[in-house]
Amino acid sequence: MNGLHLIADLYGCRCDLALLKERTQLQTLCVDACKEAGLTVLGDYFFQFTYDNGEPAGVTGTVVLAESHLAIHTWPEDRNVTLDVYVCNYSRDNSALAKAVYDRLIEVFAPVETVGHRVVRGHIEMPPTEGV
Amino acid sequence: MNGLHLIADLYGCRCDLALLKERTQLQTLCVDACKEAGLTVLGDYFFQFTYDNGEPAGVTGTVVLAESHLAIHTWPEDRNVTLDVYVCNYSRDNSALAKAVYDRLIEVFAPVETVGHRVVRGHIEMPPTEGV
Repeated sequence: MNGLHLIADLYGCRCDLALLKERTQLQTLCVDACKEAGLTVLGDYFFQFTYDNGEPAGVTGTVVLAESHLAIHTWPEDRNVTLDVYVCNYSRDNSALAKAVYDRLIEVFAPVETVGHRVVRGHIEMPPTEGV
Repeated sequence: MNGLHLIADLYGCRCDLALLKERTQLQTLCVDACKEAGLTVLGDYFFQFTYDNGEPAGVTGTVVLAESHLAIHTWPEDRNVTLDVYVCNYSRDNSALAKAVYDRLIEVFAPVETVGHRVVRGHIEMPPTEGV
């Protein structure tokens, strides 16, 4: 179950504010970015937060992938976003596809500051050595 | 958007194998663990992988929380699981609740080995200093 988990906290996103506030826009962006990178979308769930007056107040959501998942949470009042893209390399190395989604979304959000983490997860399963 | 992201890769899980293979069982465990810890479940999406003969071959899923998310992926053939519990501390400190879910699930899976990571995400937003 060796895989790559890319984590980013994005500050001061200079994108259209609607992208951080409107569920459908963010959902479409995330699902399409995964598909365009060549990842397999199995399903997704996005939730629209609202203020007491009914105005949109941020979005939180996940895209479940055959290769693992994407998760995103937005704070439009501060123009901040947290992003996770995690892929396992079970049948092929998906690291470049994860990086493509991650880079694409950061390009769209256009943050002033990005704090990133890169976590290599799981052991690489080695084939059994003959005769041992 | 200060928060705590707990990451674990679990090897050799000694739980009932059905928990790693059956979507409904895993989904119920994860959703209930979040609720029991006091986190707010907004929705979830779990997917059942199958072999060519239709037998269950692992489960992947996410629980979307008001506080952020839980994500889980299982490899029953190796008895391995990857787990993420991420909570933001927007209106209160949810760190102890995240740790409760994380500990509860690891207790249930009973792995021989756990490789964990703890990522503190986001700046702590400081209140503006008066007169500055």
